[in-house]
Amino acid sequence: MDQRTQTAAILAIGDELISGQCVDTNSAFLARRLAERGIRTTYHETVGDDGSAIVDALVRTAGLADVVIVSGGLGPTADDRTRHALAKALGVELELDASYREHLEAFFRQRGRPLSEANRIQMMLPAGAIPLANRMGTACGMSARLARADVFCLPGVPHEMRTMFDEQVLPRLTAGESVIVHRAVHTFGCAESDVGAALSDLMTNSGPVQVGTTVSAGVISVRITAQGEAPEQTRGLVDQTADEVRQRLGSAVFGQDEDTLAAVVGRQLLERDQTLSTAESCTGGLIGKMLTDLSGSSAYYRGGVIAYANDVKVSHLAVPEELLAEHGAVSAPVAVAMAEGARQRMVSDWAVSTTGIAGPTGGTAAKPVGLVFVGLAGPNGTDVAERRLVGSREIVRLRASRAALNALRLAMRDVRT
Amino acid sequence: MDQRTQTAAILAIGDELISGQCVDTNSAFLARRLAERGIRTTYHETVGDDGSAIVDALVRTAGLADVVIVSGGLGPTADDRTRHALAKALGVELELDASYREHLEAFFRQRGRPLSEANRIQMMLPAGAIPLANRMGTACGMSARLARADVFCLPGVPHEMRTMFDEQVLPRLTAGESVIVHRAVHTFGCAESDVGAALSDLMTNSGPVQVGTTVSAGVISVRITAQGEAPEQTRGLVDQTADEVRQRLGSAVFGQDEDTLAAVVGRQLLERDQTLSTAESCTGGLIGKMLTDLSGSSAYYRGGVIAYANDVKVSHLAVPEELLAEHGAVSAPVAVAMAEGARQRMVSDWAVSTTGIAGPTGGTAAKPVGLVFVGLAGPNGTDVAERRLVGSREIVRLRASRAALNALRLAMRDVRT
Repeated sequence: MDQRTQTAAILAIGDELISGQCVDTNSAFLARRLAERGIRTTYHETVGDDGSAIVDALVRTAGLADVVIVSGGLGPTADDRTRHALAKALGVELELDASYREHLEAFFRQRGRPLSEANRIQMMLPAGAIPLANRMGTACGMSARLARADVFCLPGVPHEMRTMFDEQVLPRLTAGESVIVHRAVHTFGCAESDVGAALSDLMTNSGPVQVGTTVSAGVISVRITAQGEAPEQTRGLVDQTADEVRQRLGSAVFGQDEDTLAAVVGRQLLERDQTLSTAESCTGGLIGKMLTDLSGSSAYYRGGVIAYANDVKVSHLAVPEELLAEHGAVSAPVAVAMAEGARQRMVSDWAVSTTGIAGPTGGTAAKPVGLVFVGLAGPNGTDVAERRLVGSREIVRLRASRAALNALRLAMRDVRT
Repeated sequence: MDQRTQTAAILAIGDELISGQCVDTNSAFLARRLAERGIRTTYHETVGDDGSAIVDALVRTAGLADVVIVSGGLGPTADDRTRHALAKALGVELELDASYREHLEAFFRQRGRPLSEANRIQMMLPAGAIPLANRMGTACGMSARLARADVFCLPGVPHEMRTMFDEQVLPRLTAGESVIVHRAVHTFGCAESDVGAALSDLMTNSGPVQVGTTVSAGVISVRITAQGEAPEQTRGLVDQTADEVRQRLGSAVFGQDEDTLAAVVGRQLLERDQTLSTAESCTGGLIGKMLTDLSGSSAYYRGGVIAYANDVKVSHLAVPEELLAEHGAVSAPVAVAMAEGARQRMVSDWAVSTTGIAGPTGGTAAKPVGLVFVGLAGPNGTDVAERRLVGSREIVRLRASRAALNALRLAMRDVRT
């Protein structure tokens, strides 16, 4: 790694984090923002509202990185220990900061609320520390030099922390002399080991480009990262690797970065000026929900039937009763009939259907938990696929919904209008 | 803190976490589960896919706590470094584990997929480490004694990690001698400040019981925590406070702990042997999804119509065209007609409906983003409520869905059969 690359450590403070009652989203935000400035985060740490643990963590992280960003522990209550810990780590006392006192008095005056006794501690800073203004709340941030690091302490409330980071910390950071570029290429329907085998030479990470994979309910994402001094060249390296990944993984690739299967399918439908409806049994509305998560989906999504009870499959999707009696609701012929019924009755170009055993109960030897049939009716006929999915009820339903959207994506890719 | 209280450190591994591309939810899950066993987490740390950083972190955390739980870095690809790092920290080599090899071969055979060369690394464990079986995927977990700690390495994929923790790690942990008891009492439809005012004397946290509130899309949860050596007594203190909270907040309280509005409504329907159908426009299937998240929901949920396009409201829910022309799709009369149409056509005792402007676009001065009508048709007639919801598209849809379920909950509470 380049000697001039700046590194950062992120320190999150709070009993609600350490006990798991809240999930820490601040650290991920900070790491992304730092990366945009070419500063590479190498370390996250979380400690509770415990003064000596915070002092230890400050001293340790300040020896590990050029920049330490601390969030949390700056509130007005007795369990907020960050300012005291920073003073102790610096070997100085807390002092009243006159400029921040004025700011705080104005903040309360403006809101017509009295400044409480508890808020007075928020005017105290370690001697020599620089106050960081907070437009969004009462907790003053602070910055100081400790060991080899510039330390910035921010409040834990996410919207206060984010505003203060952008307004007060970013302008004080020395931009790294290098930039970091991330890209994610998303695939559906592969095994992680197959993706790994196809990309093994790219994943040795011996060169300037790092390649890794992450998995989430059937989606394997290939994450590509490069760091370099020249922004254009670094972006070029990442683009080139992403192109190579796309080429090797072929039609399994459905998008990149913020793309979801529902968004990609929506774009395809818009381009072709076609419409979609849904017929859901085991997914119970999840496919409709995923499609309508997107603003503008009314341009191509007509609606759907959640046919949870068998007689609703008959009454609302025209599934023949004989088919249900002969094959059972979880069967390929019923998935076909559901998709065709939705396509016809909702008057859409395409329709997807799901019927399966989401579990954890309801499975049999012949039809185990995880067995799902995915139907797709379109201008050229109807297809059905049998999937045997592994995981919790939530995962089976999510994978089945994604499998239905992916089948539609591939069909539109193949059948050019 | 009691000397006999066991402590834990949690170590999350992955470039996608350290760079902020993914938010770590595993560590919060683990801390909560450990607390249920009376084991107090004192430290979370995150490092990237960097072998020597993982070794350092393992050695450091194993000196800090009685239990170290590691998640991530056990996949089949070259960026998965946890097994190598654990071997190095232990000063041993990796060895083929014959029992795990059999498990992995069976896993692939069952799915009719070949075992790839890449998966072979997943059969390797540090010499002397104990394999932890993974029913949900290919990554074997492992456990070993390092310094003063029992170290457990789990995969990073959340559902695999959770299942393995519950099945393989929990039975191997020594329970702490003091217990931590958490309880959450959930309300819907109150303002947080009103809940705070009603409970202010309980929230001073001067006694052994801690009370706080958290907010999520209309649900205000009152969180009650106590720690003590005597399990019965500690649980009694928490129960007593929970009873007091329920009494003060009255019908706004819908459940506790793992309860969701959908689960509570489902129990009410089961008790009365009644059924429900849904007619969703702006929520696009989300209510159906929430109802069918629960195994067994087919006993009371008949299904629904996602009537996203206006003509689907007419064709599938018998909403009169004149009503749409006169009042527009987002109106009280249309919400009423949708609920009545669903109740009649799906032959259910109850039906809920939603129609609104989820945003971020599509709002007008007369019908702004966030305006939602929620209909409820039941044995005694139909009600409709107008809500003006604040937040992102996701939040508006979630709040509208919860408002519909809450209306049904209150109606079933009032109308005893």
